Amino acid sequence: MINYTGTYTDQYELTMAQVYFQKGRENEKAVFDYFFRKLPFHSGYAVFAGLEDLLDALENLRFDDKDLRYLSEIGFPADFVEYLKDFQFKGDIFSSREGDLVFPNRPVLRVEANLIEAQLIETLLLNILNFQTLIATKASRMRMVAGNRKLIDFGLRRAQGAGGYSASRAAVIGGFDATSNVRASRDYDIPVSGTMAHSFIQSYDNELSAFRDFAENRPDDCVLLVDTYNTLKSGIPNAIIVAKELEKRGHSLKAIRLDSGDLAYLARQSRKMLDEAGLPNVKIAVSNQLDEYVIKSLLEQEAPIDIFGVGTSLVIGAPDAALDGVYKLVLLDGKPRIKLSENLGKVTLPNRKQVYRISDSNGNWIGADAIALEDETDFSKITHPFDVLKSLSVKNCQKEPLLVKLMENGKRMEKPRTLEEIASFSIGRLRSLSPEFKRFNNPHIYKVGISDKLMKERDILIETLKKD
Amino acid sequence: MINYTGTYTDQYELTMAQVYFQKGRENEKAVFDYFFRKLPFHSGYAVFAGLEDLLDALENLRFDDKDLRYLSEIGFPADFVEYLKDFQFKGDIFSSREGDLVFPNRPVLRVEANLIEAQLIETLLLNILNFQTLIATKASRMRMVAGNRKLIDFGLRRAQGAGGYSASRAAVIGGFDATSNVRASRDYDIPVSGTMAHSFIQSYDNELSAFRDFAENRPDDCVLLVDTYNTLKSGIPNAIIVAKELEKRGHSLKAIRLDSGDLAYLARQSRKMLDEAGLPNVKIAVSNQLDEYVIKSLLEQEAPIDIFGVGTSLVIGAPDAALDGVYKLVLLDGKPRIKLSENLGKVTLPNRKQVYRISDSNGNWIGADAIALEDETDFSKITHPFDVLKSLSVKNCQKEPLLVKLMENGKRMEKPRTLEEIASFSIGRLRSLSPEFKRFNNPHIYKVGISDKLMKERDILIETLKKD
Repeated sequence: MINYTGTYTDQYELTMAQVYFQKGRENEKAVFDYFFRKLPFHSGYAVFAGLEDLLDALENLRFDDKDLRYLSEIGFPADFVEYLKDFQFKGDIFSSREGDLVFPNRPVLRVEANLIEAQLIETLLLNILNFQTLIATKASRMRMVAGNRKLIDFGLRRAQGAGGYSASRAAVIGGFDATSNVRASRDYDIPVSGTMAHSFIQSYDNELSAFRDFAENRPDDCVLLVDTYNTLKSGIPNAIIVAKELEKRGHSLKAIRLDSGDLAYLARQSRKMLDEAGLPNVKIAVSNQLDEYVIKSLLEQEAPIDIFGVGTSLVIGAPDAALDGVYKLVLLDGKPRIKLSENLGKVTLPNRKQVYRISDSNGNWIGADAIALEDETDFSKITHPFDVLKSLSVKNCQKEPLLVKLMENGKRMEKPRTLEEIASFSIGRLRSLSPEFKRFNNPHIYKVGISDKLMKERDILIETLKKD
Repeated sequence: MINYTGTYTDQYELTMAQVYFQKGRENEKAVFDYFFRKLPFHSGYAVFAGLEDLLDALENLRFDDKDLRYLSEIGFPADFVEYLKDFQFKGDIFSSREGDLVFPNRPVLRVEANLIEAQLIETLLLNILNFQTLIATKASRMRMVAGNRKLIDFGLRRAQGAGGYSASRAAVIGGFDATSNVRASRDYDIPVSGTMAHSFIQSYDNELSAFRDFAENRPDDCVLLVDTYNTLKSGIPNAIIVAKELEKRGHSLKAIRLDSGDLAYLARQSRKMLDEAGLPNVKIAVSNQLDEYVIKSLLEQEAPIDIFGVGTSLVIGAPDAALDGVYKLVLLDGKPRIKLSENLGKVTLPNRKQVYRISDSNGNWIGADAIALEDETDFSKITHPFDVLKSLSVKNCQKEPLLVKLMENGKRMEKPRTLEEIASFSIGRLRSLSPEFKRFNNPHIYKVGISDKLMKERDILIETLKKD
């Protein structure tokens, strides 16, 4: 749905590219890392999402005629615009698998391409990965508290414009079951779900007629919204009448939906009334400003809720609403690069690197990722990148390389994974993570350490740059 | 850029539409109001945005082949899908002007259309208007504190996916001067702006060479990023060298940009160094996690800053990140409709209404909007919709009707306003608003009242529905 062309970028990517082009530097080989510095939502982990969308966008990235005309208009020189006419991304991508758990300050993805290509895709890459990773992480927190109950995305109306489209996708990666967003459902093959609005009930002179018409036309997909007038005095009794009528016709009422009031109380009372009417299979769905905290609280109160419809807080990733992912140059024509900062925590890690997930000799994750230079064959210790006092032996540990080559010369090396495959991979990964890292409040901090060789390389570069 | 088709919606809009269709109700005439309940950011007003995008989307809204195929696949009946094949929005839109100041609980826009059309556009309408109004309001707050200084949107990389595209548009309506987002700039004719990234500097062996190459190729659009190594010891001295070289070639350095550290201190020191070097016209731009509070604080410290580049907080509308706009049925086939709630504040206002901005006899806004039934020719008093003790005489006041008919039978009645026209209209409206409503903290509450006739109609409907 989103038409990613060459101008889906910040202007400075183009001005820099112009200078590289004019100076004949376009074919210098550059390596950039994508990583983020802070986990959102006080979560102990993040769920990496957006990758397949990014790879799609990169495979098809071109400057179209409108783009080229516009760039000429705003003063880019003719020879550079001519160069962009044939622009394609022909680089390589090494990446964590989509759906994997990722942590701050370690490369999540690496781009290797000529300098102009690597630079021009920066904004596009950040725009896709930052947002989808944010939302998948938010969704994962809701899945964690919701157990096996059904989670449905209802957020499009309050989403940040077309961001809602990608949010519905990312929500599935984080563990959502379905979406109300028909376009996202169509394009990403997400189960679609929906009930009725209050306006539907209001469009009738009485609630029962509204329920009956709906049940008549959607007998096998009937969820009745029961709070338009009075949930317990009108909505549930009318829903019970319609459920009985449906049964006579060989169908059954799927669920009732509560959208206001005290959801715990109303769910309990509704359950009781439905059960007493011999309708134990009619499920209870709730919505209305839910987030992971409200879901947790409702379930701690043992509210008999089967389905949660989550809107705003999911699709905007409230309250953080942004992930601080960045894209940094680490190698250029074979020379390692870093960005200095007065704050060591913001100094980047130079050179081409691999990231390893560390397991004990039985294959159990110990809760640490190691960053090493790509050609390092062995290292037995990792150290906190900004605190040399903290180190960890990884002797006799298993090391799973996390960055996999997925794109070569601008082409995917394997067929795209489906959303279902990605979500199921993600669940498996979460299962391998010890509970203390998944704790809802104050999770244990997952360790990210660097090898001795990498630290040495970084520190020498810092010294050199400081001397200049 | 965003391909709005019929499936850009929540599934329940379609299931309701199906029932209306099957029951032969598709041509009932419906009236829906769009309004919101809470101002974001503790602001005293909101800036209405998104309208022209919405009107565009409505004029062109169709179900394409993929949509129709998909709806069949997920079980919508053939006759209904056939009906959707010819779907067009053929209704009327009465709306506040885009860029106008809008307030909670009063209709911002009214849709009159057949029931199916009015229902099917709900999600699309909310998705566009809620987000752009949020961002225009955020931008307006920054404009308020920034005075005449330049404000540039740098947010695309941290935006909520393609939401960044609409955010750049809305930011201009709220008072931003330019954007780094090239696509938004191309499509919406927004001045584009950009400098260079740290990676550009890092791609050179030293900062001065990087500055020189950039100045050589962009001599009339040269903004140098000075904080890669050491702002005051390296960045500014090198920028001064390059500025002098540019002068010799008949050009001048436009600005330097600070992106880290203590911006107030560094701006002051940089200004001093530039002035002492005879470069008083080189401007100072700053970026790095700015929002209206940081901008205000920097300017209170008299930091000599000319240009603010604002990213994340602008394009995601932090911290609220969503506007709670809703879309409610108020009239159906001539019968007024309301939605009941246990909370009077959530009971909707029935029937076709007009909203008036109230001015005193000299034409000065008094700080109140009045909602009345559309056919009311005169009313001399308005009352708080949820608190009958609060009323206000509007005798001898001027009443400007705010809802203007802009679309008839699905076609715009006048040509689209440009972004520039909308932004300039908005500035004029803000000028008419008394300062106490624009106060940054704890603004005076703008009054929204309803006419006696409207209140009576609402209260009778409440009683009738309660009796049922």
